[in-house]
Amino acid sequence: MSLNLVPFVSVDKMMKLVLHIGIERVLVDLAAEIEADFRRWPQFDKTPRVASHSDVGVIELMPTSDGTTYGFKYVNGHPSNLRRGLQTVTAFGLLADVATGYPLLLSEMTILTALRTAATSAMAAKHLAPEGARVMAMIGNGAQAEFQALAFKAICGIEEVRLYDIDSDATDKCARNLAASGLKITRCKSREDAILGAQILTTCTADKNYATILNDNMVGAGVHINAIGGDCPGKTELAPAILHRSSIFVEYPPQTRIEGEIQQLDADHPVTELWQVITGATAGRTSASQITLFDSVGFAIEDFSALRYVHGKLAVTGLYDNLDMIADPDDPRDLFGMILRAAA
Amino acid sequence: MSLNLVPFVSVDKMMKLVLHIGIERVLVDLAAEIEADFRRWPQFDKTPRVASHSDVGVIELMPTSDGTTYGFKYVNGHPSNLRRGLQTVTAFGLLADVATGYPLLLSEMTILTALRTAATSAMAAKHLAPEGARVMAMIGNGAQAEFQALAFKAICGIEEVRLYDIDSDATDKCARNLAASGLKITRCKSREDAILGAQILTTCTADKNYATILNDNMVGAGVHINAIGGDCPGKTELAPAILHRSSIFVEYPPQTRIEGEIQQLDADHPVTELWQVITGATAGRTSASQITLFDSVGFAIEDFSALRYVHGKLAVTGLYDNLDMIADPDDPRDLFGMILRAAA
Repeated sequence: MSLNLVPFVSVDKMMKLVLHIGIERVLVDLAAEIEADFRRWPQFDKTPRVASHSDVGVIELMPTSDGTTYGFKYVNGHPSNLRRGLQTVTAFGLLADVATGYPLLLSEMTILTALRTAATSAMAAKHLAPEGARVMAMIGNGAQAEFQALAFKAICGIEEVRLYDIDSDATDKCARNLAASGLKITRCKSREDAILGAQILTTCTADKNYATILNDNMVGAGVHINAIGGDCPGKTELAPAILHRSSIFVEYPPQTRIEGEIQQLDADHPVTELWQVITGATAGRTSASQITLFDSVGFAIEDFSALRYVHGKLAVTGLYDNLDMIADPDDPRDLFGMILRAAA
Repeated sequence: MSLNLVPFVSVDKMMKLVLHIGIERVLVDLAAEIEADFRRWPQFDKTPRVASHSDVGVIELMPTSDGTTYGFKYVNGHPSNLRRGLQTVTAFGLLADVATGYPLLLSEMTILTALRTAATSAMAAKHLAPEGARVMAMIGNGAQAEFQALAFKAICGIEEVRLYDIDSDATDKCARNLAASGLKITRCKSREDAILGAQILTTCTADKNYATILNDNMVGAGVHINAIGGDCPGKTELAPAILHRSSIFVEYPPQTRIEGEIQQLDADHPVTELWQVITGATAGRTSASQITLFDSVGFAIEDFSALRYVHGKLAVTGLYDNLDMIADPDDPRDLFGMILRAAA
């Protein structure tokens, strides 16, 4: 391939890629890729994402590298976008060759982030949720909801999803989209109703506020909480008392302390790094009555895994375009001459 | 325009844009844009760039925001690329709307970085170089050299450029490219020869090493040093004794302390922020015998200015393509349904 060209996976091509492989299969594959990268966690360059906050949202850059490949994601979070008819979260990302700094892939990541977030949640739950969990409450039925439901079906064996959203239109949309999924879909009238009989509680709401999606008295013993929506400073979903009763598992503590549910706790409150559960270095769930909490904020390594997965599909599917993004003069020092020659 | 589409300026379109406007005019315009943004320096979100270092190079992300518009650049620096026939520095960048997080522009920035670096250097020299400077030494005749020469001609009135590079092929290339520029081009056999009679000394070499491109005894009173090549940890060009004799001007001290020539000095060595010279808050050159040093490492605001300049040219020139980069379902919460509908 010419050095100036960078493979680009557009939104259209990403949809075709997902449909070609099958959504559940993509989720299973992504979970495996992410789990494999969590297993080699110490190999990665890690840094909390670089956030630019405004009154209405945040724009973030999430870089990481395994020493061979570099990746980063651009992602925004603007809860107010919904009212303007825009996506709350949009994203794109890039892989590059560490040896040369040249890009290997540019990809849309709005869809890919939804997929990797769900795959990560389900992968964590596979390690943490109680044995035999078959029912999940899903509070917040926005853009991430169906991906979560299918990931928990495909990866954890969830059979029933109990939906609740303060906006019943969102629940309608989610139920409609999952109607043919093979999951039992139960529409619920309240948060309390949604968690009835659920062994896994997923919270996935979008307000940029200290919200209380789950109260302490709503959470019984033995459940796994998959807390997705609390993911930036000032944005949480759980009552602090729940956190004090839970064993808390996180991706990258320096980032989660700033962005996760645990921003409500002291900076030295004990947490377990998920990757250490996966390698077996630390215990995950140790009793049936324990409350496990995956305080997920999303970490750069998950995006890296997802981008590598997409990159691995380029050759076999051909689902990409080439972008003329890198200046490539015949003599690399002759950038100026390249412009002069373009005039001729 | 459809919400999913992001204007993209490819390498080809960037060359056409530069040729359409004229290189010197672009340099003058960019210097004005950068100077205007330096004047409102306190309005910007500033952070040292986020660097991922390897043995052979560095990959960096450079974000900033003025509260209305957000921008970032991806840029690598791999001196060893030259031996592989690759660019030492390649880059691309993005502008986004702070209010929504949606991208406004994706652009190649290898060419644009060369232009903005030269424009910044000349803009700084306009404020710092001795009155009536007409001769510039250019040590290092690589990809950045011609851009520097033309920027100093167009912005500072430089009439003669004295070229030296350890590789005479680079000097040949540079002299050839500048033959029709209107500048007097003098090929020199040594660094000492190059600086003869020069009031401005530009160093622009690429080794990732503590190099000594200028020795103390080579630098006389009253010159302006434009030090471009020392721009990452472990990479410098000037003997420390020169720094001790100079008044040092920098872009953003927290970044320059890590990356610039002043990484060789104590962390509290006095430096002046260039933006304060531009606003008049601080003096620039105060005597004819003073050595002024612009210890340039490149800062995110310069890229922001350059991206905004390019963005401002889109509508009038039409020199861009549209990238299908942002998922845009009719109902923003129905990302999943968009995929389902794409199957149909």
